[in-house]
Amino acid sequence: MTAYLDRLAERSAKVSSCLCLGIDPDPATLPTGFVAGIAGIARFAELLLDAAAPYAAAVKANLAFFEAYGSDGIAALERLRSRIPEDVPFIADAKRGDIGSTAARQAVALFDILGADAVTASPYLGRDALAPFLDRPDRFTYVLCRTSNSGAAELQNVTTAAGKPLYLAVAQMVASWASEAPTAGLVVGATAPNELTRVRDVAPQLPFLVPGVGAQGGDLATTLEFGPTIEEHGRRRGGSLLVNVSRGIAGAASGSASANGSLEKAVAAAAADWSARLRC
Amino acid sequence: MTAYLDRLAERSAKVSSCLCLGIDPDPATLPTGFVAGIAGIARFAELLLDAAAPYAAAVKANLAFFEAYGSDGIAALERLRSRIPEDVPFIADAKRGDIGSTAARQAVALFDILGADAVTASPYLGRDALAPFLDRPDRFTYVLCRTSNSGAAELQNVTTAAGKPLYLAVAQMVASWASEAPTAGLVVGATAPNELTRVRDVAPQLPFLVPGVGAQGGDLATTLEFGPTIEEHGRRRGGSLLVNVSRGIAGAASGSASANGSLEKAVAAAAADWSARLRC
Repeated sequence: MTAYLDRLAERSAKVSSCLCLGIDPDPATLPTGFVAGIAGIARFAELLLDAAAPYAAAVKANLAFFEAYGSDGIAALERLRSRIPEDVPFIADAKRGDIGSTAARQAVALFDILGADAVTASPYLGRDALAPFLDRPDRFTYVLCRTSNSGAAELQNVTTAAGKPLYLAVAQMVASWASEAPTAGLVVGATAPNELTRVRDVAPQLPFLVPGVGAQGGDLATTLEFGPTIEEHGRRRGGSLLVNVSRGIAGAASGSASANGSLEKAVAAAAADWSARLRC
Repeated sequence: MTAYLDRLAERSAKVSSCLCLGIDPDPATLPTGFVAGIAGIARFAELLLDAAAPYAAAVKANLAFFEAYGSDGIAALERLRSRIPEDVPFIADAKRGDIGSTAARQAVALFDILGADAVTASPYLGRDALAPFLDRPDRFTYVLCRTSNSGAAELQNVTTAAGKPLYLAVAQMVASWASEAPTAGLVVGATAPNELTRVRDVAPQLPFLVPGVGAQGGDLATTLEFGPTIEEHGRRRGGSLLVNVSRGIAGAASGSASANGSLEKAVAAAAADWSARLRC
């Protein structure tokens, strides 16, 4: 039983990149020729996966884009998951977390039924609500710390009595969880580079999953400088940082003709480009 | 297009109760004679619904207990939803919330595809992450404020620089959202009666969904005293408070024989009892 971080490090080294391929198929932005229902969504998700995964250290699917089609959507996600190559870690972006017995069923749903190697989760309910996730030694949980949305600061930057913003309190809380078992990391958006830098300061060894690069306009240079974990003997890249790109890759298909495999080529080229820019 | 709170008030008045029937079918606690797979889960969920809903102001299903069976589980939940009487509001307990385009798909999944009248959601990402939920005038969103799990205080009771615990900052934040449109309320656990009382103080007019009564040992008297909203002309019960009971009703089936409809009778009796204790 290899730990998730070791599997991720191996794959990341193989592709020399910390690119995480985000699969968030939105019916509003499907290329011409794809029907807006689940059949078109599933076909486009498979195209993205097949064309871009060879350049990626991991694949992340955002469950909401499949849940929006009910049980048919989840069935499509299950088929997509079975198509992911075995050596590519799969992250279920679900942002779960709930009280004890419910969280246990969430962990079954994501880890055992969907076969996720890692998940995203919310910190709001505290550690006991994430125990069924954190207690799995071969899986991993990225806890929301500072998200990439424009309104993230509304709650996350509330100052605590200790004089620091809430997101730093969350980072320190998760670091204390991870000191017991290295199964937790953080979601920190590239759209908030100052916050990302501060989080790295208080949690030098926590792996980051960084969304917000690409379409959301996040800060790539800061992400690559402060995203990697700091080990005892200095900085180390790879296996500990994932930078997610979704629309930056999927969007390459929107301007392309659908004939003659040109969509696949456009997506593969965008993935190769991002993979190179995210060299680890 | 009737507002959710009006539909809830009408149903609550009809059954003279603020009982919310929680459907969280756990394979570990199914009565004898029910197989532990999705078929048994679905059959028991239907039994609970048919026997207990006549006494309930609303029905809440916790999605994780269905998601744990993948697409088959979601299909069973869809069938269960279609079985809920039209005048009984249905709450999808999903604790969602995500950045813009993802939250929009979550709202489609829960409101449009599953047909939820109301949902539960996390406050951690701020208002913009919940806009696709809050902006629906005929639906409703219960935002997590003080949850009922034993470790809830770890983050929710962190003191802010303003000298109050985080859950009160969340209550005030949601109250400000609700002042624009009355589509938001709070989840406040009965296991934290002091906190529940303080939340009611700072958010007199926000509807509460209160879990934690029954199996979790929450404080019923405090819930009934401080749970109802405070209107300008004094207190008003009904339509603004929901008290969830899941295991307290489902558990009535565990000691019963499965023959001759006695399971149904035991569940109905437990629901009638809780309905009367939660008179509104």
